[in-house]
Amino acid sequence: MDLRHLIQDVPDFPKPGILFRDISPLLRDPDGWDEVMRQLGDLCTELKPDLIVGIESRGFIVGTALATNRKIGFVPVRKPGKLPGDVLGIDYSLEYGSDRLEIHADALQGHPRVLLVDDLLATGGTARATVELIEKAGGDLVGCGFVIELAALGGRQQLPVEIPVKSLIIYS
Amino acid sequence: MDLRHLIQDVPDFPKPGILFRDISPLLRDPDGWDEVMRQLGDLCTELKPDLIVGIESRGFIVGTALATNRKIGFVPVRKPGKLPGDVLGIDYSLEYGSDRLEIHADALQGHPRVLLVDDLLATGGTARATVELIEKAGGDLVGCGFVIELAALGGRQQLPVEIPVKSLIIYS
Repeated sequence: MDLRHLIQDVPDFPKPGILFRDISPLLRDPDGWDEVMRQLGDLCTELKPDLIVGIESRGFIVGTALATNRKIGFVPVRKPGKLPGDVLGIDYSLEYGSDRLEIHADALQGHPRVLLVDDLLATGGTARATVELIEKAGGDLVGCGFVIELAALGGRQQLPVEIPVKSLIIYS
Repeated sequence: MDLRHLIQDVPDFPKPGILFRDISPLLRDPDGWDEVMRQLGDLCTELKPDLIVGIESRGFIVGTALATNRKIGFVPVRKPGKLPGDVLGIDYSLEYGSDRLEIHADALQGHPRVLLVDDLLATGGTARATVELIEKAGGDLVGCGFVIELAALGGRQQLPVEIPVKSLIIYS
């Protein structure tokens, strides 16, 4: 099943010159979404994660859907100040400025096998920061899954070479 | 199954005097989460929604999980400036200041039956604004589902009386 026809191209969003790949039509289409679950589910079958980590906020959509579908626990990585209680954080650079992500300090105790899931792999900055955060929290990263990869932006090179990375739709 | 033991009480978050009900332990527990899906799934069986609407960002967690579980399309309601393309918005008041939510202008064309899902019903301000936004976009709201309701804050009174509202865990 070709998932690409369920991605909407929106020129000049969020700023001029950027072609935004919007997954909204895919989210509205239960058959297309089922195919996303099947393909990312194969990654679960292969890698046997104990937990799925998803990044706020579109990563919540893909991550919790997959976690629910495969009956695996879900751990959110959030923007600063959103998680209550003790957290671990990581600061990272963006094209303009910087950002920070947080995870519950006790979320990955006992070295669980962790699958990182997000909607989009672009420059890889957010994904790399989350990989570091997962390791900092004690998790054993076993793989990464993305719905869309923008290959020209080189995000895959930001991720550990020894870890399987699967993207369902790759734009060159 | 008692879901309450999977909710973590965090005092003084996000500010002094507030007791935060954190669903993180529930998200980590596949059996507990399965029960959430079963109970909210009953609402789908009863109300037969065409689409599930979830509010950024914890509503994405509950909404997409349920949509995936029941093979129903999902439509996100997001904070301003996040959705590409044509959107409809609604401004609403908070305890301090105001906020705005947006939905794709064409997301609810054809008067689909819509189930609104979020993690928490507190004062009801966000839920009420989303109900208005759903109606503005042409959706036919058939029910609301929440994981947690803080009954003392009166949020249920902000929702249309003719619409079924189901909360799985109610704190008095």
